[in-house]
Parts: sequence; C-alpha cells; structure tokens
Amino acid sequence: MSTFEMIEAAAERLKGHVRETPILSSPFLDTLAGRRIWVKPECLQHTGSFKFRGAWSAISALDEGIRQRGVIAYSSGNHAQGVAMAAAKHGIASVIVMPSDAPQLKIDNTRALGGEVVLYDRANEKREEIGEAIAAERGLTLIRPYDEPQVIAGQGTTGLEIAWQAAEIGVSQADVLICCGGGGLTSGIALALEKHAPNLRARPCEPEGFDDVKRSLASSRIQNNNAASGNICDAILTPQPGDITFPILHRLCGPGLSVTEDEALQAMAYAFLRLKIVLEPGGAVALAAALFRGDEIEGDDVIVVTSGGNVDPGIFAKALEFLT
Amino acid sequence: MSTFEMIEAAAERLKGHVRETPILSSPFLDTLAGRRIWVKPECLQHTGSFKFRGAWSAISALDEGIRQRGVIAYSSGNHAQGVAMAAAKHGIASVIVMPSDAPQLKIDNTRALGGEVVLYDRANEKREEIGEAIAAERGLTLIRPYDEPQVIAGQGTTGLEIAWQAAEIGVSQADVLICCGGGGLTSGIALALEKHAPNLRARPCEPEGFDDVKRSLASSRIQNNNAASGNICDAILTPQPGDITFPILHRLCGPGLSVTEDEALQAMAYAFLRLKIVLEPGGAVALAAALFRGDEIEGDDVIVVTSGGNVDPGIFAKALEFLT
Repeated sequence: MSTFEMIEAAAERLKGHVRETPILSSPFLDTLAGRRIWVKPECLQHTGSFKFRGAWSAISALDEGIRQRGVIAYSSGNHAQGVAMAAAKHGIASVIVMPSDAPQLKIDNTRALGGEVVLYDRANEKREEIGEAIAAERGLTLIRPYDEPQVIAGQGTTGLEIAWQAAEIGVSQADVLICCGGGGLTSGIALALEKHAPNLRARPCEPEGFDDVKRSLASSRIQNNNAASGNICDAILTPQPGDITFPILHRLCGPGLSVTEDEALQAMAYAFLRLKIVLEPGGAVALAAALFRGDEIEGDDVIVVTSGGNVDPGIFAKALEFLT
Repeated sequence: MSTFEMIEAAAERLKGHVRETPILSSPFLDTLAGRRIWVKPECLQHTGSFKFRGAWSAISALDEGIRQRGVIAYSSGNHAQGVAMAAAKHGIASVIVMPSDAPQLKIDNTRALGGEVVLYDRANEKREEIGEAIAAERGLTLIRPYDEPQVIAGQGTTGLEIAWQAAEIGVSQADVLICCGGGGLTSGIALALEKHAPNLRARPCEPEGFDDVKRSLASSRIQNNNAASGNICDAILTPQPGDITFPILHRLCGPGLSVTEDEALQAMAYAFLRLKIVLEPGGAVALAAALFRGDEIEGDDVIVVTSGGNVDPGIFAKALEFLT
C-alpha cells in the first residue's frame, strides 16, 4: 500500500539528498496558453529526471543487511541512472540489466554513475531470466520502476513540494499536468496533493497512440497500448498502468490528456526559449498539453511537471527547428 | 556607495518577486574538472538572466513619485528585458533604447515584456542623445546596467543566496567564478560574500580578447578592451570595468580568468548534457573556466555562476555539435 504517510517518511529519508526543484514561469508561455503556467522542472533533479527520488526512497527503505547486498533494476533509461546513482551514494552495488542495443551514451552514463551494466540480447534473451539469476546468486533486491510502494512514495515527494510551492505563489485550485508512463510519478503526486492541496488535481499526460492511462481512466479498467515502441517519447512508453498505481490514479486523477510527437517537440523548443531548461520528448508532454490542449484544462492557473531532460543532441536540435 | 547593507535592503525588496535559483551539480562535471563544481544557474531567473535582480532593486528603490514617471534604459540584451519586466510588474512605463539592427527576437521580447522600444540608427545617431531627450521630456529615470549602486545591490542578492547555499552543501572555502561584463554581478556577489562567507572568493571570468577586468585587476588600474564587438559572448562585452564596480572588484576579487569562444560553446554543451540548463555563450564563460582553467583555480570545490541563457537556437545548435 502506498499511502501519504509513506510519502512523508520518504521525504524525511530524501532530505539533503534530493534536489528541491524550483517553480518556473514565463509571461510568454502564459500568453500562449491563455492562462498562467507554473512549471516544476524535474529535469533539474539528480541524473536529469524525477527517477532519482523513487530510487533513493526504495534503497533507503531497505533493511541495512539486505541493502548491503546490493540492488538490481531493468531499464535502459532514466530509472537505470536514478538507481545507479542512488545506490552509489548509499555505498552499495547496483546491477542494471540493459539491452545490448541501448544507446552507448546511456550505457556509459549508467556505468559512470556506478552501475554494473549487464547487457542482454533483446531478440534471444529475456531480461527477467537474466536478472533473476543474478539477483538470486548475489542476493540483490529488485527495484521496480513504478509498481513499487516505496518508489511511488519517493516520486510523491515531488507532490509535497508542489503543495507548498503552490501555496507560496497563491495557487490553491488548478490542474496539475504530469508526464505519465507507468504512473509512479502521477500516483505519488496525486496522493501528496490529496492530503495537502485537495483542490490541485493530478492529470496524467501521454503521447497519442500510447495513451493507455487515459483510456484506462475513461473505461475504469486497465487498458493496454497496441505497440511497445515507435514514439519519440521513449521515456514514458509503458505497456499499461501498474497494478498498484492504477487504483490510485483512478481514485484521484482527472481525465488524461494526450499530445502528438510534434507538440512534444514544440514544447521542448518553448522550454528552451522561455524557461532555459532542457526537456526530453517524454518529459515535455505535460507542457505540450498545457500549451496545446487548453480547452481540456480548467482554471486560470495550470501546474506542469516536466519530468526529465535526458535527450540526445540530435533530437534536441530537431525540436529547435520549430523556432526557425 | 554600494555596501552590504544595501544588498540586504535590496533582498528585502526582492522577496517574493525574484526567483531563488537552486544549486546544481553533476558527477560527470566533477570528473571533467577534477574537483566538485557547484552551479548557480541564473539563466533560470526571470527574463533568463540575473539582470532582473538589479532592475527590480533599482526600480523598487526609487521614490514613489519619481518611479511613477517611468524609467529608461539603453540595452539590446539582457538588461533591456530585466528592466522592461521589472517596470511592468511595478505598473510603470519603461523606455528601452535599442539599435535598429538588434535581433528582431530581442526587440519583440522587450516589447512583449511591456517595454516601449525606441530604435536608433547605430551609424548616424547617439543613443545617449536620444535617450536624454526622451528622459528629460517625460521625467524618466535612467537605470544603468552596472555602474549604479542599487543595481549592484540587486545583483548582490545572488551572493547572499550563494552564501547560505554553500553552507548547506558544506562548502566553506572555494573560488566563486562569475561571468563578468561591467562588473555589476561580480562586485555585488563579492560584497555579499565578504560579509557572509569570507572564505568564498569572487573571481571574474571573461572571453579572451575582452578581458578588461582581468587586466585591470592585474595592473590595479582600469584597462580598456581594444574592440567593442566581435566575440560570441555578446552579453558580457563591455569596454571597461565601471568606476563604481572596479574599486570593489579590486579590493575583493581574486585574479580574473579568460576562456576562448570554443570553450564557452563547449561549456554550453556540457550544461545541456549534464545539468539540463540552457546557457548563452556569455553566461557560460565561468563554467568554461571551471572546466578548462582548472590549474588556475584553488581548492576541492568551485562555485560557478552561469549568468544567462538568452541564446539564439542557431548558436545553441552550434554548441551541441561538440557532443557529436
């Protein structure tokens, strides 16, 4: 069970280790959107995404004896880097199982952050089989990317910050748009807001064609995506909402929103131009929804969580082309 | 006279209006530099540079009757935008005198932020003559970009934040590298550190060939640059240190540092990749000095003020080429 109490406990464990990200804004974005946009840039978090929060929360919650044996994660992206850095800062080993065709930069980064990278052949091997064998042999604990209560609690600390920061800027009622993959960040924030800012409503944002959470919320049962890849927003392409995250999302969230790839790229360009932050496509969908789905949003203010900034220079350059 | 008391008073006036920028870091940058790098990203400030602090400080310090008549500034860059936005938020008029060949985007931005833009012909007109005529006619107060005590006091609030943030991360002794044009930001920070963190030493950073402050400090008297333009770091190309800023710089700063244009561009690329922030060339010279002039820096930690992020997409794309 992920509860508000777990988020508060996670916040205590994260204190001094996680970065408290600011709230950014720009009158230019407000004009574009027709309402005030308040951006919570989790791309500025350690390792360039919110994932460090959940990783730190999960690792710090382990019993000392178990933690010392190390942790394992499956990921080619932001969760990998979050787990590797959080483990290294705890002084423990981390094994990250990555596909051998993952971008070299991500493999190098994960290694440089202290992770022991184990590569597998996506076509002929199952990562779970490889991971379970290593985990059993070495007594490692698996850190799941989202369907894990302590990970949700860690991501929920973002919501605690949003609650007091919203009060500080005088926003008591607003939609809170959140880039959503498996729902760990969205459900964590929703739980924090339920307690501390009940008139701030979490709303998941996804790429069109990969809007499993949106459809699941609309139909009140878990829906799948038809494809597992084939969208520029790679960080948030998950097959379906989690078994733990979905009931939380269903109980607390407003309707989902979805945007096109070009809209995500344009939001990256606006974030560059007006906020001076670097977003990856998957980390920009919530801002894209604020800018281009205004008719589906309520109120004079909207809060936007931009969840990550780990983007290849080539894709970023493509986003900048929208400005010329 | 700019004094520490003026900075503290400015901080009171800026409260709730200025953005308190965080401290960012990356283990990758630490490895590159061979010491821990702590980055204060003023590119995340309102209008994309620290200039908003000084503009707000100066405008908020005016007597009510004088302020209501409005303000005027000469600038084609960051100071223009800072003054326009600070004036608009005070509900007063601002006139910004800009060269007619300034980039259209900067002219549009200044107008959109509420500034009344007066264009002049750089070849045949003197901006001072135009400005003084308008100022006299309308009773406007001139807000100078750096050689103005209340502007220095506003920029100095950056130093107050650095002092308590350094204490929080456990850094009590370090060089503080600051992108330096006329010296308003550097002298303000130096004054704040003298009082609150005397073992943090301000050091101005400039582009090679435009290192007037570095040479002025070395020779203990004000030196000029040979050229007024012709470097990618346009935001910090000033002819010489100010009459007010230089004595402060001379009394409090360590030796200046200078970097090449390519090093500034590379620092922009690293800031993109490792910190997820957008820097302009002139806002990146201090980070470039931390990365590429390590032998001129003392200690295990270095603090870096990245002063602005108002960069054209084309120049940013050029910086990204260093990553491919």
